[in-house]
Amino acid sequence: MSVERQRTAAVIGTGTIALGWIALFAARGLDVRVSSTRSDAEAHVRAELVRYAATLPEGPLDPEELFARLEFTASVDAAVEGADVVQENALEDLALKQKLFARIAAAAPRDALLLSSTSTLLPDDLGAELPTPGRVVVGHPFNPPHIVPLVEVVASERAEPGLVDRAVGFYRELGKTPVVLRRAVPGFVANRLQSALLRESIHLVREGVVTVDELDAVVTASIGSRWAVVGPFQAFHLGGGAGGLRHWFAHLGDGLERSWDGLGRPPVDADTVALLLEQAEASFGQESYDALATRRDQGQNAVIAALTELS
Amino acid sequence: MSVERQRTAAVIGTGTIALGWIALFAARGLDVRVSSTRSDAEAHVRAELVRYAATLPEGPLDPEELFARLEFTASVDAAVEGADVVQENALEDLALKQKLFARIAAAAPRDALLLSSTSTLLPDDLGAELPTPGRVVVGHPFNPPHIVPLVEVVASERAEPGLVDRAVGFYRELGKTPVVLRRAVPGFVANRLQSALLRESIHLVREGVVTVDELDAVVTASIGSRWAVVGPFQAFHLGGGAGGLRHWFAHLGDGLERSWDGLGRPPVDADTVALLLEQAEASFGQESYDALATRRDQGQNAVIAALTELS
Repeated sequence: MSVERQRTAAVIGTGTIALGWIALFAARGLDVRVSSTRSDAEAHVRAELVRYAATLPEGPLDPEELFARLEFTASVDAAVEGADVVQENALEDLALKQKLFARIAAAAPRDALLLSSTSTLLPDDLGAELPTPGRVVVGHPFNPPHIVPLVEVVASERAEPGLVDRAVGFYRELGKTPVVLRRAVPGFVANRLQSALLRESIHLVREGVVTVDELDAVVTASIGSRWAVVGPFQAFHLGGGAGGLRHWFAHLGDGLERSWDGLGRPPVDADTVALLLEQAEASFGQESYDALATRRDQGQNAVIAALTELS
Repeated sequence: MSVERQRTAAVIGTGTIALGWIALFAARGLDVRVSSTRSDAEAHVRAELVRYAATLPEGPLDPEELFARLEFTASVDAAVEGADVVQENALEDLALKQKLFARIAAAAPRDALLLSSTSTLLPDDLGAELPTPGRVVVGHPFNPPHIVPLVEVVASERAEPGLVDRAVGFYRELGKTPVVLRRAVPGFVANRLQSALLRESIHLVREGVVTVDELDAVVTASIGSRWAVVGPFQAFHLGGGAGGLRHWFAHLGDGLERSWDGLGRPPVDADTVALLLEQAEASFGQESYDALATRRDQGQNAVIAALTELS
């Protein structure tokens, strides 16, 4: 595993995900070049960094201290010139990202890591217009990236040997938890799992079994705190008692596969959306986005800190 | 909401779930009558209580202190006579439980709470042989019940007014988080959500995207600690930025429902089970059940304590 130290990172974009990376990179001592098409990029980032600096996992930092590590430029070429790593966060538009990466590859050093935060596009497609198409690696964070440990690392089959290790090394150095996907699949892993849970959640609300906030209460009071500690496979392994997963599968037998068919596949039509919004607005919808997001971030930091302390 | 104080609880059974209830009830100061068909019930419970007493959410207690609150009897009639509440944990066999509840209802006080830990049977069916069939209420815990806050409360439509409130009051008094289902549905809520996530998890492992332990790592490093803090609906609400869930649905539009069809429906055949077991045994399967379970329980207590301290 490479332990090379990256010193200059270019961040393309100033949206929510880009801001998380900017805060994290700056907090970890990198020099950060921010490239944005916004005319007010500097003022926007400066204002937004206040909330990000307040919720860094290691505790609050002075946002001006982070801001001092940033340079702004409208030019992608100037941002990536001499950069050790580029983290791209443009809109989820394949043609746009392909052109962007062709430009980035031409202007960045030959050995710069080219990383994309995309949640929906595949590395082979992103690199299609490059002289070495396997060069773009997906480093997909879970929002917000300065807090949530996971980064899904997804590379082309044509990636050069060692490239994935370099991407993993970079994210580890930042304190993240990179997980390398063995093959690219639409939606990657975490979002597919979220989608599976959401599908059944919407089904149960539509069926009148629970409301939106009751469903959330069920999750936080059971599988949420469970899966913060052990993933679903280990959880079921322990659910099988001393016989583990082997006993569990033997005990459930064919019932498990049959149970798939009992799960819902709800329509997401206008009535369904209206029902969900009505219930959401009657509960957490009453609070401001900032208050809720800050509580979420403080909570998630507290959970991660408690588990780090135990381990 | 009734705040009546339950003083004597009868626990039917001495399996894993029963032991969690026994530990919790005794730790909260109830007198506990344990009814079991095991000839070694007393020795078995005494030995097992050591691990349960060590992982109580409020910190370890002396197992002998808990044990001193227990009385043992092979007779269900004797266990429930004069009891304020009965928590039944027999095998998931409808005919057996129907007969058991008929007997419990005949021997227990007329106003005793009759609760079942069943995870698969419905309250209407459980009470079918009672003079007042709506009397049995499901109080389904999430394993282990002395640690995980959730209790799913599911009542018959024929339940007497106030009965659900009494069950909710009982579990609240114990420090649990009861969630009342608005209607009974097979698998209730938490297990259906688990099943939905497991289905996609197995699919991703079968497709070679990640291994069993990589899948678990994705979950603990992202959605696990997220859902310990906010449930899926609030999480997506905040994922939508300041526009919330309304913006999120508008942005995703029809794509959300279409995405359901991209999720997997894996067979659970012999090859699939063999693959999962092989990968599980190569990772967490190397550790003992007791070591893993203790770490899970300590972790979950730490997560809950950290979030309680914040709130």
